[in-house]
Amino acid sequence: MPNTAAVPATDSTYAALRERYLSVRAATEALAAPLSPEDQTVQSMPDVSPTKWHRAHTTWFFETFVLGAHQADYERFHPDYAFLFNSYYEGVGARFPRARRGHVSRPGAGEIAAYRTYVDEAMASTLDRDLDGRAVALIDLGLNHEQQHQELLLMDIKHVLAQSPLESPYLSAPVRVAQPSPPLQWISLPGGIAEVGHDGTGFAFDNESPRHRVALQPFAVADRPVTAGDWVAFIDDGGYRRAELWLSDGWAAVQTEAWEAPLYWASIDGDWTSFTLAGRRSIDPAEPVCHISYYEADAFARWADARLPTEAEWETWARRAGVQVANQFVDRPALHPRHTQPSVYGEVWEWTASAYLPYPGFRPAAGAVGEYNGKFMVNQHVLRGGCCATPAGHARTTYRNFFPPSARWPFTGARLARDG
Amino acid sequence: MPNTAAVPATDSTYAALRERYLSVRAATEALAAPLSPEDQTVQSMPDVSPTKWHRAHTTWFFETFVLGAHQADYERFHPDYAFLFNSYYEGVGARFPRARRGHVSRPGAGEIAAYRTYVDEAMASTLDRDLDGRAVALIDLGLNHEQQHQELLLMDIKHVLAQSPLESPYLSAPVRVAQPSPPLQWISLPGGIAEVGHDGTGFAFDNESPRHRVALQPFAVADRPVTAGDWVAFIDDGGYRRAELWLSDGWAAVQTEAWEAPLYWASIDGDWTSFTLAGRRSIDPAEPVCHISYYEADAFARWADARLPTEAEWETWARRAGVQVANQFVDRPALHPRHTQPSVYGEVWEWTASAYLPYPGFRPAAGAVGEYNGKFMVNQHVLRGGCCATPAGHARTTYRNFFPPSARWPFTGARLARDG
Amino acid sequence: MPNTAAVPATDSTYAALRERYLSVRAATEALAAPLSPEDQTVQSMPDVSPTKWHRAHTTWFFETFVLGAHQADYERFHPDYAFLFNSYYEGVGARFPRARRGHVSRPGAGEIAAYRTYVDEAMASTLDRDLDGRAVALIDLGLNHEQQHQELLLMDIKHVLAQSPLESPYLSAPVRVAQPSPPLQWISLPGGIAEVGHDGTGFAFDNESPRHRVALQPFAVADRPVTAGDWVAFIDDGGYRRAELWLSDGWAAVQTEAWEAPLYWASIDGDWTSFTLAGRRSIDPAEPVCHISYYEADAFARWADARLPTEAEWETWARRAGVQVANQFVDRPALHPRHTQPSVYGEVWEWTASAYLPYPGFRPAAGAVGEYNGKFMVNQHVLRGGCCATPAGHARTTYRNFFPPSARWPFTGARLARDG
Amino acid sequence: MPNTAAVPATDSTYAALRERYLSVRAATEALAAPLSPEDQTVQSMPDVSPTKWHRAHTTWFFETFVLGAHQADYERFHPDYAFLFNSYYEGVGARFPRARRGHVSRPGAGEIAAYRTYVDEAMASTLDRDLDGRAVALIDLGLNHEQQHQELLLMDIKHVLAQSPLESPYLSAPVRVAQPSPPLQWISLPGGIAEVGHDGTGFAFDNESPRHRVALQPFAVADRPVTAGDWVAFIDDGGYRRAELWLSDGWAAVQTEAWEAPLYWASIDGDWTSFTLAGRRSIDPAEPVCHISYYEADAFARWADARLPTEAEWETWARRAGVQVANQFVDRPALHPRHTQPSVYGEVWEWTASAYLPYPGFRPAAGAVGEYNGKFMVNQHVLRGGCCATPAGHARTTYRNFFPPSARWPFTGARLARDG
Repeated sequence: MPNTAAVPATDSTYAALRERYLSVRAATEALAAPLSPEDQTVQSMPDVSPTKWHRAHTTWFFETFVLGAHQADYERFHPDYAFLFNSYYEGVGARFPRARRGHVSRPGAGEIAAYRTYVDEAMASTLDRDLDGRAVALIDLGLNHEQQHQELLLMDIKHVLAQSPLESPYLSAPVRVAQPSPPLQWISLPGGIAEVGHDGTGFAFDNESPRHRVALQPFAVADRPVTAGDWVAFIDDGGYRRAELWLSDGWAAVQTEAWEAPLYWASIDGDWTSFTLAGRRSIDPAEPVCHISYYEADAFARWADARLPTEAEWETWARRAGVQVANQFVDRPALHPRHTQPSVYGEVWEWTASAYLPYPGFRPAAGAVGEYNGKFMVNQHVLRGGCCATPAGHARTTYRNFFPPSARWPFTGARLARDG
Repeated sequence: MPNTAAVPATDSTYAALRERYLSVRAATEALAAPLSPEDQTVQSMPDVSPTKWHRAHTTWFFETFVLGAHQADYERFHPDYAFLFNSYYEGVGARFPRARRGHVSRPGAGEIAAYRTYVDEAMASTLDRDLDGRAVALIDLGLNHEQQHQELLLMDIKHVLAQSPLESPYLSAPVRVAQPSPPLQWISLPGGIAEVGHDGTGFAFDNESPRHRVALQPFAVADRPVTAGDWVAFIDDGGYRRAELWLSDGWAAVQTEAWEAPLYWASIDGDWTSFTLAGRRSIDPAEPVCHISYYEADAFARWADARLPTEAEWETWARRAGVQVANQFVDRPALHPRHTQPSVYGEVWEWTASAYLPYPGFRPAAGAVGEYNGKFMVNQHVLRGGCCATPAGHARTTYRNFFPPSARWPFTGARLARDG
Repeated sequence: MPNTAAVPATDSTYAALRERYLSVRAATEALAAPLSPEDQTVQSMPDVSPTKWHRAHTTWFFETFVLGAHQADYERFHPDYAFLFNSYYEGVGARFPRARRGHVSRPGAGEIAAYRTYVDEAMASTLDRDLDGRAVALIDLGLNHEQQHQELLLMDIKHVLAQSPLESPYLSAPVRVAQPSPPLQWISLPGGIAEVGHDGTGFAFDNESPRHRVALQPFAVADRPVTAGDWVAFIDDGGYRRAELWLSDGWAAVQTEAWEAPLYWASIDGDWTSFTLAGRRSIDPAEPVCHISYYEADAFARWADARLPTEAEWETWARRAGVQVANQFVDRPALHPRHTQPSVYGEVWEWTASAYLPYPGFRPAAGAVGEYNGKFMVNQHVLRGGCCATPAGHARTTYRNFFPPSARWPFTGARLARDG
Repeated sequence: MPNTAAVPATDSTYAALRERYLSVRAATEALAAPLSPEDQTVQSMPDVSPTKWHRAHTTWFFETFVLGAHQADYERFHPDYAFLFNSYYEGVGARFPRARRGHVSRPGAGEIAAYRTYVDEAMASTLDRDLDGRAVALIDLGLNHEQQHQELLLMDIKHVLAQSPLESPYLSAPVRVAQPSPPLQWISLPGGIAEVGHDGTGFAFDNESPRHRVALQPFAVADRPVTAGDWVAFIDDGGYRRAELWLSDGWAAVQTEAWEAPLYWASIDGDWTSFTLAGRRSIDPAEPVCHISYYEADAFARWADARLPTEAEWETWARRAGVQVANQFVDRPALHPRHTQPSVYGEVWEWTASAYLPYPGFRPAAGAVGEYNGKFMVNQHVLRGGCCATPAGHARTTYRNFFPPSARWPFTGARLARDG
């Protein structure tokens, strides 16, 4: 999962910061509002966290790194919460085993609400004081961190709701009119030396820096992501039964996990359907395919006589004039990727061919917050773009999301590339 | 786990049956009342079921075996519930995987309440009609079945509440004054031919029949169960570190599971404590030891130069004049075994030396309810007596409870025996 | 697996004992002779031991319990062998993990031969001296122990040879003429009080004692074991697909392990074949079915509207006038069970309905040899009779073999019983 | 594991090719010669293959890709060998499960020798004929493939021999005089555009191409690998107990696997020793540390305030004037890495910071041989250099070896780098 590291905040005034704090914190509670206490308790697999855990962990972050570190007389809400809601920070002590988060019924959703209120009140007084740059940076980091968990909350609860045969929707939404898969255009780009990485303007996670030069060969990028319609053609052509299309580890996963289609897809009376946050419905050929692993994205590309782009290629393409990010997170999350549009990204996270590794000269932040990103730089692949559950502002061109190649429960899709 | 099989009901009039139905059903809801929706959702290990599942499964029993079978126009509450709440009856169709019951957030605790009301109303009209003997027997069975699940509900929720570092009590209760472990007396009984098993008077599960003769050698039985005080002596004498005391499979469990004391025990500042349904507290040397596996009971007996009784020995002892069952379930469950009393059983289930096997001439009931008991007759040991969470009337001398020898989360204890 | 405990030897003179020692030791080497060093190295599953391990472990037994204990100046052959070749005796120190015996290439088969010679020479001088009764009993025990391992060696190497697609035979043997399954007769026996267990005449393992009384109901026993022909009928009638025939744990095994027939059976062009120590061949309907688990034996009996006998019933039947043990181990092991004969046992081990538990008054021997049998008395079922790989003299009526209910790689079969 | 793909052979005349064929094939047999049939049979973990399997699989390669494909009348040695000795080529049919290679005793080592002779004779006649370029390329590939397996054979048998407490040496060798760890010098290199990858002169595997440009920042490389002496300092400074030094997956491995030192190291009376192919001996501080995972190499680098080089940095450094490859494989394998020398590589494989991914424009060969390298390009890291068990000629600057980051049983070490 993506995480965060301290980068100096910019010109936020305290008022703006306080307003943003309230807004981000309220957005988390709004996302949890449709969920029952039972929904908020379940952990449907080790990678998933319960909703109430997300609500508590993001709160623990402010308690630990801001209040505990910068407010001398701060009294913790509960002595066991540091143990319960630390995710993976070795530097701040022991923690409850991740795979057993769903075994904890208490504190319940209501007590977590009280915890959030308590910390928010303490933060309010903190935000009134003179804050040094380090504290502002940590608050900024904490807010970006919480926004990342908003997305995790949605992808996790989707997995939870899919476990019951009831397949209850998270929210109801009008059914869209399905459309045929749009034609694919290739955008050709020249090779040469390119610059990638964050330029230091505005917030970014530590893993997006330093900006640096890369050598590119001429290449082409598809101007739309792979669609659900494309994927049906792949399935129909035996995509999940042809070993020659797959990486060795991917083919092992196909056989062990009995993959025959993307996660959440089911064939009902010969019609492909998908469970969405608005319930199960027929797939729409024009929407980006979603909930595929890296292995599947890679196999599809081989089948299509193409490949996945590297993250440098992707970023170079995304910076091009005319390429736009989807604009789906104004008020509340879109519940599902929408129809693809030419030269737009941001409806699904797009697997790249690049392993998740440090940029040349990368240095994690000092202290425990330095554990955010750097220590996960092995055994994962980079995804770019953003998705229908990504908070606005997190879909920037330099953003490096990452997951193990077997992950399917995030909103993961693919975009093709080829040698130019 | 114990289960049930059809035995003809006795002389219950409809009024009495209806009253008993309402009483048993209300008792289940009373047990669940202190539990939050979050508590009712968690499955802390595969052997444990969520509270709301227990509430639903006992309801499904009446829906399936009484309403569905005997009421022609009965309409099921929900089409997916038969799949969700069938425990293990192969004869009535597919079922949701047991180990994943805790992954189901919906239906929630409130919907289960509605389900219970719906079925109770349908049952009320059924209980008004002329019922044949088969239906009465099934209702009787269903009520005994539900009472068994009341006990399971308590032992399961104890395990759930123990997972959180908060160790919240199920209910609060006054702390008792600890007493020293009482002295042990041996009751000698002659050998010869004895009769064991149920005599057909009143309800019994199928596995208690037929009554039959067994040959006994002279033997002696301890007039009180093994106490917590005894157990501390066993621990202090290296009981968990001496391989020669253990069955081979037991010693493997000691090492694999790192057992050093009964489940829920923890040494705090040199003082042995135990998590109880009323919270963590110091152990009371005079109370029966609880939450031990068969392996531990057997090792303790070897250490004490004794052995466990067979179930025939146990039953012969329990029928003796002067032996009494504990009387702890009048209003609501005792939360923990009380001080031992001479010639009393029923505070903890007592492991016997007998494997759980059919009695000579045993025949399971016809139909799917025949799956209650018989199909579990391998890889388990018999326990006798009853415990502080057992409903009144389930602590009869012929009752055969059973668990795998590694089970520790039920209220399991031990009573010693030796050759006479 | 069955093992041994000290019982005082009888009237063996030293000469007879020495002769028997040489004979038993030579028989082991004769069994290993057809096997290559590679064959002797493989451990095809954790329950199987490599041939060279069997050869070394039986030697270690004499080194540890006779030479080491009774010969003051004895020098061990190699300092690491006690660690490598201790099977499970906690009382004599640490041991190499069982599941990794097949990871040890050195010492090789040749070094084990030298080890055997070394110990045999030391034993020869021991057998010349005055031996006390304890030593004689241990040698007697060691020889019976080694004979048990002769059978284990054969059943283990059968499993090893079956792993390779080459399915090489252990030895070649002429193909027998297949015969139809013989008709089944029932032998009725009255109930009442019977005596079972060893009477102290001649060698027996500790688990066969004390002789004691049991109460029996009238019953009947099939005068021949279940045949391969019977089993084909069971398969053809859907035996492996009908949940109602199976114990719950058995049905789980059928599904997890994908059982469709006994171990080593394969259907080739519609013809059932079985891998035998003489290679793969068509099954013979008249031979006892072999390589079935307790679960399968139990399910078959339920399908046949019968049940398995208890061990007391089996023993009572086997002592009856006219019942005979098969006579198949005169020179060398029969490679496969032969045609069934009326009132004969000993071609296949017969699963009984009895769990493996101590007889009333059972006491294991003092010291480490007391670990032979008693510590395995849980989670196993008793088998009676003997099999085509059992040494002569081990097929007595009181002999209690035992395996977990899932075991299929021994020569396990079944005999039906029913209420009289 | 590294593998091979067809690249057109160069100017080998038939005579030279035949001579090389005989030489490579004989070298494999020479490596196996010290090993007993038992040694050749064992598979000590799933990643390890038995020696006789290596001998057979390399033979199967020629049988399948040369004889079977180019000699019309060729008759296979045995019908089951294609199934038994296919490693992972999905394109040529089913194969025996990898994790169970050690369960196969037959064919034995002797039969594999006959198989090798049979195929060598068929190859001899093939090498006399007119061969087309494709066949010559496949033979060249087969020889390089067999040389790779020579190294695998040695690292695998080292793991096998280490399982037994006997710790028998593969071969004996004189003990060297230990020396102190030599001082470390840094070689600074400028950034800019560099070319990496194979230039097409002579044999190379497909994964070394195409040659392409990369952008480098200024960097420095240590002129010697990390030594055993360095590693002792790391251990003494708590390297294996400090979470902050480790990647998250690495720290999990430290805890799960209880790592405290490199594989094969053991502390005896306060002295660090290592099991080598010549037996156990004290470590030599001046030798390169060996048998470390990527996780350990990465943690060490962090501890040393450095990092691992990327493969492009490594290759750029290795091409520098004055850098030399170790010269240890003239006659027979060195049994252990020798003392480090400045500006020399090739005693241990050096983990790089680069994930194993395709070079820009990479295309695997057509047909089943295309499965060599490409399909493993996920979840692995690149190692560079060569080791004491690498055949001469395989230690070229462009060679890309690869293993999962947890692998420790190859001869894996590390070289430090830092930003320039």
